[in-house]
Amino acid sequence: MTARLDRQIRFLNEADKLKTVIRATQLCDNSRYENSAEHSWHLTLYALVLADQAGPGVDIMRVVKMLILHDLVEIDAGDNPIFGELDHAAIAVEERVAADRIFGLLPEDISNDLRAVWEEFEVAQTPSAQFAKSLDRFQLPMQNVMSGGGSWTDYNVSEEQIAEKVGSKIAIGAPDLWAYAKTRIAAFFASHKKG
Amino acid sequence: MTARLDRQIRFLNEADKLKTVIRATQLCDNSRYENSAEHSWHLTLYALVLADQAGPGVDIMRVVKMLILHDLVEIDAGDNPIFGELDHAAIAVEERVAADRIFGLLPEDISNDLRAVWEEFEVAQTPSAQFAKSLDRFQLPMQNVMSGGGSWTDYNVSEEQIAEKVGSKIAIGAPDLWAYAKTRIAAFFASHKKG
Repeated sequence: MTARLDRQIRFLNEADKLKTVIRATQLCDNSRYENSAEHSWHLTLYALVLADQAGPGVDIMRVVKMLILHDLVEIDAGDNPIFGELDHAAIAVEERVAADRIFGLLPEDISNDLRAVWEEFEVAQTPSAQFAKSLDRFQLPMQNVMSGGGSWTDYNVSEEQIAEKVGSKIAIGAPDLWAYAKTRIAAFFASHKKG
Repeated sequence: MTARLDRQIRFLNEADKLKTVIRATQLCDNSRYENSAEHSWHLTLYALVLADQAGPGVDIMRVVKMLILHDLVEIDAGDNPIFGELDHAAIAVEERVAADRIFGLLPEDISNDLRAVWEEFEVAQTPSAQFAKSLDRFQLPMQNVMSGGGSWTDYNVSEEQIAEKVGSKIAIGAPDLWAYAKTRIAAFFASHKKG
């Protein structure tokens, strides 16, 4: 019993490090960059509040489970800002190695269960995983609009690049959320035009 | 549709403020105090990983839902460190007013649903709520042992006070977790004795 609990607690202590992984998005009040732990919490709330946007076959509590776990690999692999230059194949390998180590801290039964949830999210073939991915992308424009630009300013991103890199992904699992975001992004860029 | 989404997003933007509410516990690496948003995320992970500690009648995903929502009222009411001098009746009133305002930002159907989950947690009469409360208390000693004392040092707390204020609450919903925590707390105090 104690040996099992020791492993569970060691994993939970290791997970604490996600609070120190910094993302490219800012808090709504523009006071600082957000970390991946608080971002993960925010996304679970997105799932509860935007459950009415989920299509057929989506299990919202499975989505929540995915969102709790989805960024844990960043403890080893770091956050990869969506508008940065990314080597997706290399990142996928790095994140899989991280998943082996981090989920491997747990007793085998729990490890297998949580790893399967993470894999489902990564592969993004089920309706639940696609909706979870869409929420993860949708939070970005909502956050950037509020904070006055955030990663769009830092990476000098155009509306077209947002549609390509973020919009297309949101639209897969939550088409109405992309329609909504598009309108808010357009309004933001219209009011922040240079010159 | 857009008016409804506007309300959902306004609530999610308001919730972002939980990332700026600071708790009395530190990160495991002792680098800074943790905020209530990342703490809430950590607790949802505690629920998934320690589900085998839940007694009969506990619905783990209901527990997760409670833990996502449980601290939102702190946006208005602030965090109340457990070892501080607390007026519990006044806090309860303040948190209820906060719940009215914050959940009231949502469309009525979602508001009623989430408010009911929060009320169940607050009243702590169901097995799921009692287990959620136990996890909330259990994270504190796990965090303080790792960070070298944390709020125990700041508030000059004794082992007896921890047993009284934290242990009794953990034991209600998760007796084996309290037995485990007690051992780790004793070891911590033994190795940090003054003199």
